[in-house]
Amino acid sequence: MDAAEFRKRGKEMVDYIADYLEKIDKRQVFPDVEPGYLRPLIPDCAPQDPENFEDVFKDIEKIIMPGVTHWHSPYFFAYFPAASSFPALLADMLCGGIGCVGFSWAASPACTELETVVLDWLGKMINLPEEFLAGKDGRGGGVIQGSASEATLMSLLAARTKTIRRVQSEKPELTEAEIMGRLVAYASDQAHSSVERAALIGGVKIKNVPSDEKFTVCGSTLKKVLEEDKAAGLIPFFFCATLGTTPCCSFDKLLELGPICNKENIWMHIDAAYAGSAFICPEFRHLLNGVEFADSFNFNPHKWLLVNFDCSAMWVKKRSDLTGAFKLEPLYLQHHHQESGLVTDYRHWQIPLGRRFRSLKLWFVLRMYGVTGLQEHIRKHVELSHQFEHLVLQDERFEICAEVILGLVCFRLKGHIHQYALADGAVGVDWTVQLKLIMILCSYILLRMNMIIKL
Amino acid sequence: MDAAEFRKRGKEMVDYIADYLEKIDKRQVFPDVEPGYLRPLIPDCAPQDPENFEDVFKDIEKIIMPGVTHWHSPYFFAYFPAASSFPALLADMLCGGIGCVGFSWAASPACTELETVVLDWLGKMINLPEEFLAGKDGRGGGVIQGSASEATLMSLLAARTKTIRRVQSEKPELTEAEIMGRLVAYASDQAHSSVERAALIGGVKIKNVPSDEKFTVCGSTLKKVLEEDKAAGLIPFFFCATLGTTPCCSFDKLLELGPICNKENIWMHIDAAYAGSAFICPEFRHLLNGVEFADSFNFNPHKWLLVNFDCSAMWVKKRSDLTGAFKLEPLYLQHHHQESGLVTDYRHWQIPLGRRFRSLKLWFVLRMYGVTGLQEHIRKHVELSHQFEHLVLQDERFEICAEVILGLVCFRLKGHIHQYALADGAVGVDWTVQLKLIMILCSYILLRMNMIIKL
Repeated sequence: MDAAEFRKRGKEMVDYIADYLEKIDKRQVFPDVEPGYLRPLIPDCAPQDPENFEDVFKDIEKIIMPGVTHWHSPYFFAYFPAASSFPALLADMLCGGIGCVGFSWAASPACTELETVVLDWLGKMINLPEEFLAGKDGRGGGVIQGSASEATLMSLLAARTKTIRRVQSEKPELTEAEIMGRLVAYASDQAHSSVERAALIGGVKIKNVPSDEKFTVCGSTLKKVLEEDKAAGLIPFFFCATLGTTPCCSFDKLLELGPICNKENIWMHIDAAYAGSAFICPEFRHLLNGVEFADSFNFNPHKWLLVNFDCSAMWVKKRSDLTGAFKLEPLYLQHHHQESGLVTDYRHWQIPLGRRFRSLKLWFVLRMYGVTGLQEHIRKHVELSHQFEHLVLQDERFEICAEVILGLVCFRLKGHIHQYALADGAVGVDWTVQLKLIMILCSYILLRMNMIIKL
Repeated sequence: MDAAEFRKRGKEMVDYIADYLEKIDKRQVFPDVEPGYLRPLIPDCAPQDPENFEDVFKDIEKIIMPGVTHWHSPYFFAYFPAASSFPALLADMLCGGIGCVGFSWAASPACTELETVVLDWLGKMINLPEEFLAGKDGRGGGVIQGSASEATLMSLLAARTKTIRRVQSEKPELTEAEIMGRLVAYASDQAHSSVERAALIGGVKIKNVPSDEKFTVCGSTLKKVLEEDKAAGLIPFFFCATLGTTPCCSFDKLLELGPICNKENIWMHIDAAYAGSAFICPEFRHLLNGVEFADSFNFNPHKWLLVNFDCSAMWVKKRSDLTGAFKLEPLYLQHHHQESGLVTDYRHWQIPLGRRFRSLKLWFVLRMYGVTGLQEHIRKHVELSHQFEHLVLQDERFEICAEVILGLVCFRLKGHIHQYALADGAVGVDWTVQLKLIMILCSYILLRMNMIIKL
């Protein structure tokens, strides 16, 4: 395919995407296929000779679409939303066209610098403390990760290294393996599974901190757990606070937890994957109070801020904590401008080496919606969720089972039910008073509020 | 921006990308900017009100392009190549348009199933042993990772878990922390820095295995290192063999190393990030002989197989080794069809939770080039590199300093040179007889063979 054919086919693809998104409500949300549906539809091997574009293109509707779960359908109610917008799609096209691999400043200065500056923009939009911004010569700064899982992992690993070094200097008789064996991380029992996974990857213990009746972790509970563990000879080193938990969108009490973590030399990471986008509205910003105590903070514009996956925004107060954890400088990756206030080599901030020009889509979206446009988007979702909450409350068969704060509404049938099956028959559970379990089940029914509500 | 405007702007963007790639040779490859160039060019904050597309679009040439390193310029000679092709760009547009997040089978069956089947295609193209393929009910299979770094990390973590479990069953008196403290991973002293980084992340020791005069690791050297370490009470558990090292494209001797790893219960991972694409040509396939002894294998179609970043193909013989390492099943991610021969939940195979529909671009590329088209592409590169090697050999000022096997040519000025500066003035080094160091320096000058050679 030459450039001339790309011009033609690219324009056809633009129309196909526009058609798909304009008429997505006509498609069945969850596909009617059984596992293994695709294999019989396509050959066993790659073709020896080139096929033409028409044949490939035809197969999108014939082979792919019958097996697609349409995340952007107005009838899609599973999981937290995946963001998508036309400006982000345009920027992603450009990102592909440029096709640079921006692992260091020199590998493509624009790729690095736009990311740093646009994450400063976004940080200011949610009123992050100055320390988290890169500015001209700040010690902190932002980075785009692929997912919140990676942000949690990077912060846990940085905390691990930092703590090992500190303990080694205090107690030189301990080996690194002995210290590793005593390290313990913490997160709410409502935290996302990726936090436990980060600890498994990092080879350290992790403990659930019990949440209260509002599914929130408060200071006294954390304090109690810490005292017990320290008495048992363990070394607490990392706490992942959650703002907007996956099961029910509850919020840990940062203002109580932060000072404890600071005092105890515990790295506090904040995972606000879903909820973080809401903090661009002044009326929700209070939910982030206490971020000033955190070492790192993360949320996903690819969930609720109209930037297509993947774009997970992470900030740290001290970039040297991240880069110090794993900075390897093989000769073939060195360049004239090593990392300084002005130059960032983002490869030290993340798990992979390579990275795409993802800041383009954030830049396009912030500019083409403006702060006010994005605030409207968030407010509309929250308003619709309260509208839905109101409707549920009016129906005596249902009840609301967690406070509705943002766009997630958890509701359930009233009374004792011995069997409960989700729409797709996935889970059968014996209910009685296991409120927390019920909460988690309810979270399946996430309300996607950017759509018309059909009851 | 509504769908109608997206149709218009999308087509403009297609033309912009086609123009960019058609005239890329007119642009200066490495930008003439100093660190911090971008910040003064754009506002300090995101705009309050929406801007229009024209203004954003204008800024691409004004702000972005002056800071872009043009990886696809015919005059770009840094690093291994980043692949790019029009079919892959088209598929990536579609991937963005569908915008699903395929972490489990149910999250979008097509996204999972196309990946499994197309990685079987690709596996067959390089004649991988049957055990690595998913087939209808195989125990192995392929997955698209974001980067070779992640593939190495996943395999190291799987090996770590497997070994800890085995040692615990053999020596129940050892704690997990004690075992972790004794684990040791290995890779060539020519291996990529991401291998060392994987070990740092996993919290285990790693040792360099010395390469020979051809920069290759052979069985006897590994054996010697293993014997010493075992005698010292360490537990060897992971060896990363490299096919096509970053410094000079050398190849470790799989046929010697594989049986040793198998006998010693050491997981053998093969990192063929760059070289792997060449194995689609029968005349280069012998370089992969011995893969039958490996537990996992990885190469990057996004380097040399015309698939845009990111697309790193990884295969394992036993998928349960990967999924068993970290499988967490929170209620909100469960679905009716749990993982079996037919259903794959790729979230267990990777570090992040979310994942894009990346198999589309691999599928488009394999179909629109065909096996023969891709073989031609590889052969042309290798042929051109030999042509360049020939030219170097004819010039008495230069010499070739590592065997030219694929598309990388390492050459240097003859004689003793006390100061050597790279084109961009990045590194000044005192040379004498440090052959290996010289080799690494030379790898800066990677020959991008898909272009016209200008000497």
